[in-house]
Amino acid sequence: MIRFDCDYTEGAHPRILERLMETNLEQTCGYGLDDHCENARRLIQEACGAPDADVHFLVGGTQANTIIISACLRPYQGVLSADTGHINAHETGAIEATGHKVLALPNQDGKLCAEQIRQAWISHIEDETHEHIVQPGMVYLSLPSESGTLYSKEELTAISQTAHECGLLLFVDGARLGYGLMSDHADLTLKELAQLCDVFYIGGTKVGALFGEAVVISNSNLKKDFRYMIKRHGGMLAKGRLLGIQFETLFTDDLYWKISRHAIDLAMQLKQALEAMQIEMFASSWTNQQFPILPESWLDDLSKKYAFSRWQKVDKDRWAVRFCTSWATTEENLNALIHDLQRCQQKSCLKS
Amino acid sequence: MIRFDCDYTEGAHPRILERLMETNLEQTCGYGLDDHCENARRLIQEACGAPDADVHFLVGGTQANTIIISACLRPYQGVLSADTGHINAHETGAIEATGHKVLALPNQDGKLCAEQIRQAWISHIEDETHEHIVQPGMVYLSLPSESGTLYSKEELTAISQTAHECGLLLFVDGARLGYGLMSDHADLTLKELAQLCDVFYIGGTKVGALFGEAVVISNSNLKKDFRYMIKRHGGMLAKGRLLGIQFETLFTDDLYWKISRHAIDLAMQLKQALEAMQIEMFASSWTNQQFPILPESWLDDLSKKYAFSRWQKVDKDRWAVRFCTSWATTEENLNALIHDLQRCQQKSCLKS
Amino acid sequence: MIRFDCDYTEGAHPRILERLMETNLEQTCGYGLDDHCENARRLIQEACGAPDADVHFLVGGTQANTIIISACLRPYQGVLSADTGHINAHETGAIEATGHKVLALPNQDGKLCAEQIRQAWISHIEDETHEHIVQPGMVYLSLPSESGTLYSKEELTAISQTAHECGLLLFVDGARLGYGLMSDHADLTLKELAQLCDVFYIGGTKVGALFGEAVVISNSNLKKDFRYMIKRHGGMLAKGRLLGIQFETLFTDDLYWKISRHAIDLAMQLKQALEAMQIEMFASSWTNQQFPILPESWLDDLSKKYAFSRWQKVDKDRWAVRFCTSWATTEENLNALIHDLQRCQQKSCLKS
Amino acid sequence: MIRFDCDYTEGAHPRILERLMETNLEQTCGYGLDDHCENARRLIQEACGAPDADVHFLVGGTQANTIIISACLRPYQGVLSADTGHINAHETGAIEATGHKVLALPNQDGKLCAEQIRQAWISHIEDETHEHIVQPGMVYLSLPSESGTLYSKEELTAISQTAHECGLLLFVDGARLGYGLMSDHADLTLKELAQLCDVFYIGGTKVGALFGEAVVISNSNLKKDFRYMIKRHGGMLAKGRLLGIQFETLFTDDLYWKISRHAIDLAMQLKQALEAMQIEMFASSWTNQQFPILPESWLDDLSKKYAFSRWQKVDKDRWAVRFCTSWATTEENLNALIHDLQRCQQKSCLKS
Repeated sequence: MIRFDCDYTEGAHPRILERLMETNLEQTCGYGLDDHCENARRLIQEACGAPDADVHFLVGGTQANTIIISACLRPYQGVLSADTGHINAHETGAIEATGHKVLALPNQDGKLCAEQIRQAWISHIEDETHEHIVQPGMVYLSLPSESGTLYSKEELTAISQTAHECGLLLFVDGARLGYGLMSDHADLTLKELAQLCDVFYIGGTKVGALFGEAVVISNSNLKKDFRYMIKRHGGMLAKGRLLGIQFETLFTDDLYWKISRHAIDLAMQLKQALEAMQIEMFASSWTNQQFPILPESWLDDLSKKYAFSRWQKVDKDRWAVRFCTSWATTEENLNALIHDLQRCQQKSCLKS
Repeated sequence: MIRFDCDYTEGAHPRILERLMETNLEQTCGYGLDDHCENARRLIQEACGAPDADVHFLVGGTQANTIIISACLRPYQGVLSADTGHINAHETGAIEATGHKVLALPNQDGKLCAEQIRQAWISHIEDETHEHIVQPGMVYLSLPSESGTLYSKEELTAISQTAHECGLLLFVDGARLGYGLMSDHADLTLKELAQLCDVFYIGGTKVGALFGEAVVISNSNLKKDFRYMIKRHGGMLAKGRLLGIQFETLFTDDLYWKISRHAIDLAMQLKQALEAMQIEMFASSWTNQQFPILPESWLDDLSKKYAFSRWQKVDKDRWAVRFCTSWATTEENLNALIHDLQRCQQKSCLKS
Repeated sequence: MIRFDCDYTEGAHPRILERLMETNLEQTCGYGLDDHCENARRLIQEACGAPDADVHFLVGGTQANTIIISACLRPYQGVLSADTGHINAHETGAIEATGHKVLALPNQDGKLCAEQIRQAWISHIEDETHEHIVQPGMVYLSLPSESGTLYSKEELTAISQTAHECGLLLFVDGARLGYGLMSDHADLTLKELAQLCDVFYIGGTKVGALFGEAVVISNSNLKKDFRYMIKRHGGMLAKGRLLGIQFETLFTDDLYWKISRHAIDLAMQLKQALEAMQIEMFASSWTNQQFPILPESWLDDLSKKYAFSRWQKVDKDRWAVRFCTSWATTEENLNALIHDLQRCQQKSCLKS
Repeated sequence: MIRFDCDYTEGAHPRILERLMETNLEQTCGYGLDDHCENARRLIQEACGAPDADVHFLVGGTQANTIIISACLRPYQGVLSADTGHINAHETGAIEATGHKVLALPNQDGKLCAEQIRQAWISHIEDETHEHIVQPGMVYLSLPSESGTLYSKEELTAISQTAHECGLLLFVDGARLGYGLMSDHADLTLKELAQLCDVFYIGGTKVGALFGEAVVISNSNLKKDFRYMIKRHGGMLAKGRLLGIQFETLFTDDLYWKISRHAIDLAMQLKQALEAMQIEMFASSWTNQQFPILPESWLDDLSKKYAFSRWQKVDKDRWAVRFCTSWATTEENLNALIHDLQRCQQKSCLKS
């Protein structure tokens, strides 16, 4: 079975395992206060052009989303999110578990726009009975989105300005941030991102680490006592050094970006092959997730050899499916997939 | 600096890192459903003599405590715990964050006894206004306790019977379980433990793993939908295999028990040395944590070379301190510590 | 100012105040365990044809919704509701405050249908990653709905069967139950309602009481320890007798139904007058809330003399507005309103 | 049965019922925004000498405690309370239900002192691992305390200063405030109280109202969006006017203080009679609750005619019991009780 069903099917980039080996018998204090964590913090602050940002390391994405959102909101506030947003659709109510409503807005290709946010705020504040309604307190978006789409610099700037004009915080979930920023269609840098939002995280789990997300807090108001929030949510890893070492490695010699670029290169080869085959795409993704719409009959065939996700049924006979590439995807496996997709198409043509 | 301040100062047992290397490029599905997790589950069920137990892998102890307790209790129920219990004293209110009160009872050497539990239940149920009071729903205890002490088979059997007679669940936090069961003073086996309690976990973080706790649910009523609870609390590791591989390794060739025994051996050497020096102990621990009461003056001296915890000030001039051994502690470092403790004592004698 | 903006603009039905006067110096125990509460319970059990139902008295609707839903669901479960449902739209996230997601489904005239519920359940259970998604655990609906519409006996029976087939509980919010059951279009009795749902409440606040909602629990599984839940949510009124006396009075001599019928009669007069004027209605309500779509210009005029709610802007020049009648509405005030609506129409005609 | 078991055994002071009658058919808007509420607010601000304080009306004490505490604390903060405090002992975990730990300190006669508070703060902040411990954020105390005892002006001033020096908020639960301030031993005025604490409430339920507590927020930082919190916790009474009318009445012509004084007068008669009988008291109360320690044999006798609370068993044969007076207690009933207590004593003497 060759897996394209997600971008966390392997362990970690070999360089990370090497470093874990090399440092294994070092003795350090716990809970993210060791030198590796300090060094990783410094490297990330530099990469973000944000020497004053606070950087915290967490194990996973749901944990990061939950801790960040519950640390930022007042109890009666909710978080605006695309209806397809991970926090709305795929976290078993982790946000609600902390008492906050996810205020879902209709997505466009997986994304929100500034105008939607402004309207949501205005409609709240203009309602005479607004005290009876959850108050929007934050905008949540993913970059890239769940559909693999990107926010342009212009779009994100507009969202940031709008959010701040409305008194809302902007939080960017970067579980796949590397794949977002290294896309050919990305016109946004990490430094710009760090300036535009109040808090975001740089995903490691899906981009070469064994696990780990690096939370970057730009907005000073959000910094106080964040470590209490981490501990309260079971997010303070005893051997915090494991996170420090991984992010140290990822942010040394541009490893994070090289890994990300590799996945993008292969995803673009897949995209071109699919387009050459004139296969319709569910979302216009320039990142490491590709969503072709394929006939049911192909899926039976392909699933004998490949793992992939059935994303959404689009009509009686067809499914939008998801193929992910990652730091670990090989040319060989990708070529095999492309070849088999082409074979399916030929078989279909012969039949009809 | 030589560290004895906790039992998680190094990475992982080398065999675990080797296995992570060997399996790194295997492709697996996520979220703990892969073959390594399945195999680890089977090995743990066997070790527990509990083929029907459910086994789940979580990253850390606070996470495990929170998920287990909130999965088991009704909203208005609380959990009985020694006042020194980890959930009461050192988890930043993680249990309360899920809406449950920790019902603290006075500890005896870090432990609870059956009679306390019965009294707590009776005093609840006999109170005419008991609907105005948090209802006890579960007993939480640690084995070994926070003070390194142990429950005998007789004590734990009494607690288990009492809890069940009162309609309370019994949950054992085994963050240091290996060190508890491999103690010379332990008269309890893993199989007996699995039978006596409704749910417990086998700690990996402090016993040779990079991280990880294996939750074992014996009581069938507690099994349903537990994975929803894990996800809701941000505890479902994307690359669940990392946990599976670690516990597979720990429960192959008795590695978990050998590791634990090593720590106990060194701790007993330290204990004997301290006793030979006629140093008073804060708690009578036969496990990997030792709590001598030392003069303030020694601490300044020792802390130049060693990291250890100041546990509790016992009088004007003396502190109970904690030294931990672990799977990774070396004879060499332990001997150095013993030597330096003896040197401190000699210096004291000379002065006085 | 004559108020039609809601159905709780006055105090209580005079008979209730009389009874509070008569009983004022009686000494009773607190917390709903007194004879008046016991008597009210018995009267409601009889009215519901449910001698074994548990009956609890709460102060208000949001409190009732929150306590019932959080008592019934497991932590990872959510409650299916029309997007217009009160718990989704007008309770400042009170349900989320207890950790549960409101799973909003598109409303049809304020209502849900059985098929939607079945689909929601199927789509959950068929999703391979359903552990990552909030599990539906309950269906919430209001009778009448927020739009004043009614469920027929057939519709509610289908919903009840479907819910139970899917393992979901059915909870009916009856904040305006009297107005629902006394409508000319109602073909459902209180006894049938009590059989079809697992738990519901009979609204007092909007139907003649100073305040109060009577929760009726038919499903035995939901009865245990409900009073703990009430106390935990601050819902246990010290002088519980106040609720007992009010419901005793409402369920003596059919007062609850007579009050409700009065409001319906006046609402139907308004409805007929509006229809005679050929005014479009926003929702087809046969209950005490009427939602005509009126030109902006009329509203400025009417709002000098009347209080009413702007429900929703339907186009550039027109609003759906809400007029409520209640037990306290007088013929005189209603006729004045009708007359002024007619006057507005005449003025409009003259202008155009 | 003559009831002395609590101070809410009757309905309301007759003047309140009269006012509810007189205003019953007034039409008002809902949710506490009507003229009666506005007037009551003004009267309370005047009584408190705090024209800028925010005043909100809630239905009951547990509700008030929960809303205030959860509005004031950050998620990882807890509230310091005497172990006997109502929030710790008698609210079924309502505070924990909002995610906050009650940090219980040993009471002295039901009270806390400034030094305890300072020590709690210092021991938190000096702990190197304080991020692993719930952070104190607020001091909760009751005036009078659960044991009927009082804080002197000097004691409360010291607590207020200490709390503020430590960055803690001070919240005073005044469920029985009238009985506290009208005691002969009270040397504190309402105005001084309002200045010393950040937020407190004036209890109505136990002091002549049908129900209701008036929350007074002095600290400007705590005012924002408080009504959202009220609604989120189900505390926003639809017919808010009912609360406004009651507090309007209580704070007109000093009714609140006269009522309170009446209860104190009778309680002092009881106290003197008990002291004359040389009966030991469980707590030295100068307020409306008296706690004599009585032989078991007396209780059987007395309980045929009187309702009272068994507060705590003090030894094999004796109980501390509680007798409460209130605005509604009659001289006649009190004299009967005193007479029967004396009779019990005589019977005892004869026997022995």
